[in-house]
Amino acid sequence: MPVITLLTDFGTRDSYVGEIRGRLLTLAPGAVLADITHDVTPGDVPAAAYVLDRSWRAFPPGTIHFAVVDPGVGSERRALALRAGGHFFVGPDNGLFTGVAGSVDAGVALPVPARAAATFHGRDVFAPAAAALADGVSLDALGLPLEGDLVRLRRPQPVVDGASLIGEVVYIDRFGTLVTNLAEGACGPVELAGAALPLRRTFSDVASGELVAMKGSGGTIEIALRDGSAAEQLRVGVGCRVRTRRVPESI
Amino acid sequence: MPVITLLTDFGTRDSYVGEIRGRLLTLAPGAVLADITHDVTPGDVPAAAYVLDRSWRAFPPGTIHFAVVDPGVGSERRALALRAGGHFFVGPDNGLFTGVAGSVDAGVALPVPARAAATFHGRDVFAPAAAALADGVSLDALGLPLEGDLVRLRRPQPVVDGASLIGEVVYIDRFGTLVTNLAEGACGPVELAGAALPLRRTFSDVASGELVAMKGSGGTIEIALRDGSAAEQLRVGVGCRVRTRRVPESI
Amino acid sequence: MPVITLLTDFGTRDSYVGEIRGRLLTLAPGAVLADITHDVTPGDVPAAAYVLDRSWRAFPPGTIHFAVVDPGVGSERRALALRAGGHFFVGPDNGLFTGVAGSVDAGVALPVPARAAATFHGRDVFAPAAAALADGVSLDALGLPLEGDLVRLRRPQPVVDGASLIGEVVYIDRFGTLVTNLAEGACGPVELAGAALPLRRTFSDVASGELVAMKGSGGTIEIALRDGSAAEQLRVGVGCRVRTRRVPESI
Repeated sequence: MPVITLLTDFGTRDSYVGEIRGRLLTLAPGAVLADITHDVTPGDVPAAAYVLDRSWRAFPPGTIHFAVVDPGVGSERRALALRAGGHFFVGPDNGLFTGVAGSVDAGVALPVPARAAATFHGRDVFAPAAAALADGVSLDALGLPLEGDLVRLRRPQPVVDGASLIGEVVYIDRFGTLVTNLAEGACGPVELAGAALPLRRTFSDVASGELVAMKGSGGTIEIALRDGSAAEQLRVGVGCRVRTRRVPESI
Repeated sequence: MPVITLLTDFGTRDSYVGEIRGRLLTLAPGAVLADITHDVTPGDVPAAAYVLDRSWRAFPPGTIHFAVVDPGVGSERRALALRAGGHFFVGPDNGLFTGVAGSVDAGVALPVPARAAATFHGRDVFAPAAAALADGVSLDALGLPLEGDLVRLRRPQPVVDGASLIGEVVYIDRFGTLVTNLAEGACGPVELAGAALPLRRTFSDVASGELVAMKGSGGTIEIALRDGSAAEQLRVGVGCRVRTRRVPESI
Repeated sequence: MPVITLLTDFGTRDSYVGEIRGRLLTLAPGAVLADITHDVTPGDVPAAAYVLDRSWRAFPPGTIHFAVVDPGVGSERRALALRAGGHFFVGPDNGLFTGVAGSVDAGVALPVPARAAATFHGRDVFAPAAAALADGVSLDALGLPLEGDLVRLRRPQPVVDGASLIGEVVYIDRFGTLVTNLAEGACGPVELAGAALPLRRTFSDVASGELVAMKGSGGTIEIALRDGSAAEQLRVGVGCRVRTRRVPESI
């Protein structure tokens, strides 16, 4: 049986995730459930999209990703089931699937049964769809073909400014590390919020309590505070501008 | 192999849940472990009972529910294994099983081995019982038949007051949404803590920062704050009185 | 397929644990993943070592323990795969494996591929090693034989002082319970931070709001506050000195 991953903002102290797990294991006995996270800040679709983008490729082909951060639940936003990159994705059409929107090769809009709770499509719409896919039901059988584009989040791209690259902070992790959108072509120093940091390799290249800029595990530049929170120390949030020099050969 | 669900207040940062998972997987290899939650407020049996009631039916028949929120561990309270509604339940006799107490069709009091840690019956009494049930051991073989009633929590029922129904808040979820015991026959507006709210369908029927009353996913009326915590805004806790109008045809 | 346990300080709100789970399920399809915890205080190797020591024996022989609390990631610290006590252990050589260091019967230093992210050996070094072990690859095939000793944490031992035993607090759990290193031979009262507490059996031997000393589920003396946090009430941390009387026959 395939893997079903779970990515939500439902938290872990209520019944919500348990109800979903139960529904999945009832409808798709033997499916392997694997949490990505349930601790997305409630309603933070951009953070959920970032976490999904980072995670889904690590799972085996054919994995079904149940991704439900859905502040518009019960409204007119569409309920989706998609196939992209050899994986399946089930969740609301609110930007959560921006990262795979360009490579969707099949998709349907899921019907919302009259008995579905208006506040809990995770249990009543998306879990049955994910379980059906795990059971081998074809995607086409789950709804009507998608018309029009998926909702996409703004994905800020770094811009060239003379010898500089200007990007921004796109995610802050639980350690307070600032993840930027600066990937290829950056060579430091990295400037943000008044700090100018040389590019290093890893945390332990600086002393405890010092800031460090490095290529992070997601492939872009991150700014971290060794043994602390860079976000707190620099008082910086998502969207903060970051500047670095372009690699000389690219100028 | 059947599913064993886990519902505790042990939290997720210590060794406790790991020790339980290990014991279960050692004694019942192949059992499928599914967390409901480990983040019940320590010792909050009514909250645990609410979460269990909401979750257990979502799982397949034959599921074993390991539910251990047990502030009286080591005292004279009984250790239970029950069969009800085609599922099994293992945990302390402290009210946690109030929701299924009326439909128990078999039950035993589990013996407490002398070597059991007085503070950790979850690991030393309940996990072995849950694993035995998963392995197909008969319930009767696990202990002596139960005598007398289970401990039951007070379950407040809504009362009719003229054209009104009066209920109360019975649970507050991680979003700060107030779950009431008002189910059938309520037609709004919903009054509590000085607010009077029309019944809506879902969050997105109101603007961000506004309160909304609606039928929740558990089947009763809930009061939520869109993009915020109704509990914080209204300064309301479990037990707070809620009033609504009865549906006209029921008057 | 064997069980792979996960013990990290990566938290549960980012993509990190999802990426690891995905890598494990891709490389070792069918492996059973079992969380111990992801909520170790970032970088707190002694706490992680305590939790690992408490948990690993509960799992079946042959279990692979993926334990990555790794503040020195990317530095010269070795990456380990070990066999001890019939189980496997994969993680950094920073003291995390102090509890099994004396019983290691085979061990290798894992190579770090050039493509490994310098900040995420959990995903790029340790997960592939754990998956290989789950797939039946021999430990010897994963790296070069270990030379020299493992890094070991200081493990404070109680000392005899006349009729007293003097130990210390070695761990504080999520309830604020103080776990000491006083095991055999202690008979109370237990003195710390100005309090003197008789040894009891369990929480419910004292009233709500009272302190209690008892033999804890890990086999050593613990000091708890019924329905509260002993650590907060006593303002005590790890390392705090605890004194008790030796059992008379041992004097």
